[in-house]
Amino acid sequence: MNQQPIGYMDSGVGGLTVVKESLRQLPNEQVIFIGDQARLPYGPRPADQVRKFAWQMADFLLSKHVKMIVIACNTATAAALDDLQSKLDIPVIGVISPGSRAAIKATKNEEIGVIATEGTIKSDAYKRSIEHKDPHAHVLSLAAPKFVPLVESNAYKSPIAKKVVAETLRPYRHTDIDTLVMGCTHYPLLRPIIQNVVGPKVKLIDSGAETVNTVSTLLDYFHLGNSDFSHAPQHEFYTTGSAEMFDTIARDWLQLRHLQAHHLDLEGA
Amino acid sequence: MNQQPIGYMDSGVGGLTVVKESLRQLPNEQVIFIGDQARLPYGPRPADQVRKFAWQMADFLLSKHVKMIVIACNTATAAALDDLQSKLDIPVIGVISPGSRAAIKATKNEEIGVIATEGTIKSDAYKRSIEHKDPHAHVLSLAAPKFVPLVESNAYKSPIAKKVVAETLRPYRHTDIDTLVMGCTHYPLLRPIIQNVVGPKVKLIDSGAETVNTVSTLLDYFHLGNSDFSHAPQHEFYTTGSAEMFDTIARDWLQLRHLQAHHLDLEGA
Repeated sequence: MNQQPIGYMDSGVGGLTVVKESLRQLPNEQVIFIGDQARLPYGPRPADQVRKFAWQMADFLLSKHVKMIVIACNTATAAALDDLQSKLDIPVIGVISPGSRAAIKATKNEEIGVIATEGTIKSDAYKRSIEHKDPHAHVLSLAAPKFVPLVESNAYKSPIAKKVVAETLRPYRHTDIDTLVMGCTHYPLLRPIIQNVVGPKVKLIDSGAETVNTVSTLLDYFHLGNSDFSHAPQHEFYTTGSAEMFDTIARDWLQLRHLQAHHLDLEGA
Repeated sequence: MNQQPIGYMDSGVGGLTVVKESLRQLPNEQVIFIGDQARLPYGPRPADQVRKFAWQMADFLLSKHVKMIVIACNTATAAALDDLQSKLDIPVIGVISPGSRAAIKATKNEEIGVIATEGTIKSDAYKRSIEHKDPHAHVLSLAAPKFVPLVESNAYKSPIAKKVVAETLRPYRHTDIDTLVMGCTHYPLLRPIIQNVVGPKVKLIDSGAETVNTVSTLLDYFHLGNSDFSHAPQHEFYTTGSAEMFDTIARDWLQLRHLQAHHLDLEGA
């Protein structure tokens, strides 16, 4: 048993889609979350820069004595997971493998769509991860660079969001995909709109939510879970941007009305 | 990358429900399966005896140079997982934690039913595993000792199966369970009948199929997956009982028409 917190990092509020599932499936695990809103979006940035930012967040989380780090951001997973995993002696988990596994599990015709940021698509990480496991799978990747700004500007329920999503996903119209990976942790906030555009027969994969399965699996495997129920865990939220803006979205998404994030300065952010 | 096989053990054909999902989700991983049909059912046996049998199967699998062992049997998981995990230096995976995690993920009202053998129910392993993660969950356990013999005698589609399942599950009638864990790898062969009895609103959890998620997760985490696609893996099936009887069920369940199991003698079996 281990009462240390689990650390989550993202470029912004997207990682909260992972935290939401953690609060549900692992209600006894303390969450320390950091969103690097001052420097988002990560998608268009070079990989070595994203890797540097990921290390800054990892160092902050390590100062909080986390027992596990979750890179709750697909772009940062593609850029930094291998490096963090090889250099840290606590488990480090990314969102790409869990999303890939869930897609292989869900598909019936092995035609899988993947939407993600430019950085993630460029890295080819999903395609490699899926085809590495299932050589018969056919992956159709699509960059959706306009989705993150829609979410971060709190416009994810707006009419403009509907228009942008419909236009972005048009290339899937004449394909047979039966599964679509939301390969960016921001995208699940757009889920109702995405589902409406692709139709009810396409199964949407929430890579972040699937990641909590992996967190839970590794907590069990390494005997790291917290089973002391004597007091409710006190979660902590940090952003390099505006705490007020963060709170607005986080309170709505997590249904935690009294959530109060702290502003945090990272060097260069 | 690692081309060694993955070893699966069960008291009989039940573990094939796990293998079926492995063939689908991990088509490139070679399977070595052993079913101890000469000594089934394991359910009513004392835990220390089941542990001894599990070690015999583990030793056989290790002689086949497996890279990972899956105890594809809930009774044997409850009796032997901790012991095997602590003494072997390859990953050993049981079916109880994956089933528990999937139940917590699936439930909306936190009323969870668990059906299993007498041995598994007596061990209280599911209840502990679920409540260890989610203190609000309420687990209603029920022993279903007649299900394994129904499956092993190839009577899992018969009218008598319908009657036995309906009678066994009657205690759930006046409960609010929204999720039912099939806590024995034999039970998914009875799935259509079980679903019919509990009704379409109860979500059935196939602990074995969920276990393949865990296998896949740990293959990724430890970089043990096989990505050499140059030749199809040659799976091997062994039983301590009648190979002909095994083949009849295995061919039907796995849809592998040319499957041919080998008879194997284990000391005392």
